[in-house]
Amino acid sequence: MTIIDGKKISEEIQSEIAEEVLKIKSSGGKIPNLAAILVGNSGASEIYVGGKVKACEKVGFKSTLVRLPASVSENDLLKTIAELNDDKDIDGFIVQLPLPKQISEQKVIEAITPEKDVDGFHPANVGRMALNLPTYLPATPYGILQLIERYKIETAGKHCVVIGRSHIVGSPISILMARNTYPGNCTITLTHSKTKNLKEICMNADIIIAALGKAEFLTAEYVKHGAVVIDIGITRVKSDKTKSGWKLLGDVKYDEVAPKCSFITPVPGGVGPMTITSLLMNTLKASKKEIY
Amino acid sequence: MTIIDGKKISEEIQSEIAEEVLKIKSSGGKIPNLAAILVGNSGASEIYVGGKVKACEKVGFKSTLVRLPASVSENDLLKTIAELNDDKDIDGFIVQLPLPKQISEQKVIEAITPEKDVDGFHPANVGRMALNLPTYLPATPYGILQLIERYKIETAGKHCVVIGRSHIVGSPISILMARNTYPGNCTITLTHSKTKNLKEICMNADIIIAALGKAEFLTAEYVKHGAVVIDIGITRVKSDKTKSGWKLLGDVKYDEVAPKCSFITPVPGGVGPMTITSLLMNTLKASKKEIY
Repeated sequence: MTIIDGKKISEEIQSEIAEEVLKIKSSGGKIPNLAAILVGNSGASEIYVGGKVKACEKVGFKSTLVRLPASVSENDLLKTIAELNDDKDIDGFIVQLPLPKQISEQKVIEAITPEKDVDGFHPANVGRMALNLPTYLPATPYGILQLIERYKIETAGKHCVVIGRSHIVGSPISILMARNTYPGNCTITLTHSKTKNLKEICMNADIIIAALGKAEFLTAEYVKHGAVVIDIGITRVKSDKTKSGWKLLGDVKYDEVAPKCSFITPVPGGVGPMTITSLLMNTLKASKKEIY
Repeated sequence: MTIIDGKKISEEIQSEIAEEVLKIKSSGGKIPNLAAILVGNSGASEIYVGGKVKACEKVGFKSTLVRLPASVSENDLLKTIAELNDDKDIDGFIVQLPLPKQISEQKVIEAITPEKDVDGFHPANVGRMALNLPTYLPATPYGILQLIERYKIETAGKHCVVIGRSHIVGSPISILMARNTYPGNCTITLTHSKTKNLKEICMNADIIIAALGKAEFLTAEYVKHGAVVIDIGITRVKSDKTKSGWKLLGDVKYDEVAPKCSFITPVPGGVGPMTITSLLMNTLKASKKEIY
């Protein structure tokens, strides 16, 4: 059984990006510049955006943080987005979600020009993904593909079962794993809350991607021997065994599932650390104009 | 066993559209106008475009046929598309595929403004489909959904197996049948040329959508009793039993599969007649500005 070390792979890729930035610098090219719009100052969003800014520094990107008050009007936010769309110094940008109630997230997502949409949320980029055209892939699915690739996990002809059909993980990863490429070429079964006999379906899976958001849902009886298990869940629960009083649980009951697996991602330290790295990879692509 | 009569449903929907057009006319509204660009004069394309123009007439739409020579440059075709994009009298338009070799089909598809892309091929519209936002659905998948709806076929919690992952049928219908709506809420298995044990997978299916393009591929041993079978294939083969010397075969070996089914689409007369109707439905939506 191999534990997929997302932290290690994430650091590997970030070093590769840093090297490429050094080369760009030494040849006098433009340093990639990622901007983030942060509306309000909720704790979680501050932490996420802070992590993204720090990751930019680490690989040598420029980063630009635009702060707007929680009371900002939708119109003013859309104006700021239009400015970043036109700003030639910014290669890509994100608007940290969730947004205050007065603002339509869908309007915001569609206001970002697809060329700079390094979150990969714009319908045009989602469509390009479904059509297997070059695009910015959303962070979590992109991270999963990287892990599969770096661990050289076989996918062609394998039966991959995805649990959960969210627009940011389950649905896109089910599209990506079915593509006629590597990683891909899986027979895909997409399951969700309406699925019957999920246990039976999972027992036939070579690869299980659990993205339903229920702590320790996937127990050993769902998993056949030798399966690959990718765990997307992150649920914070109280714990008297940690300093902080909290611990993170995945969607997989790790201790009993891991011994049956050929490969498994832990939580934390599996897919989680890959998401910021995906964003950096997309920003580098934007800066090199690889997609548009 | 119920034979799904695509011709009848198609006529039903077209009558409903015709009625709506009469109402629009009598209230002084703008008559929907569908334009088609036909490059060259290959027999098949002439027939398809001719059928679309005729269908427009039948329901009371205006239609505009733009003919360009087979030798037209990509640039000149793109100019014509730009003109139609800007033409306020045209609600939607299509460029009949395939195109001559000097022209990039992908460039052409992306040049059509999503607002008028009634074929539903533009990445922005494909993405809106994947995100479950209002959009123009591509003709064949849209036709399948209509048949399921009009025959009140249950889909929630059913296991739907799609054979074939093309961008125009297999892949989009797999996305649509998984959505949290009706028709939808299926557990979806998307299979293709790399899939192993297809027979076993199909034997567990409540609904099979065969879109692989191999005449009479799906035999009785793939189908469980009571299944719903939707046949997308159309292969023309020689026949000494028809006047024309040809007959059309689906992907399903109809005679042996039909007796096992609860519902089945025949070929011809199943999904085929629905595709032009889908195009009319999309054009009506465009004219009513229901999507954009």
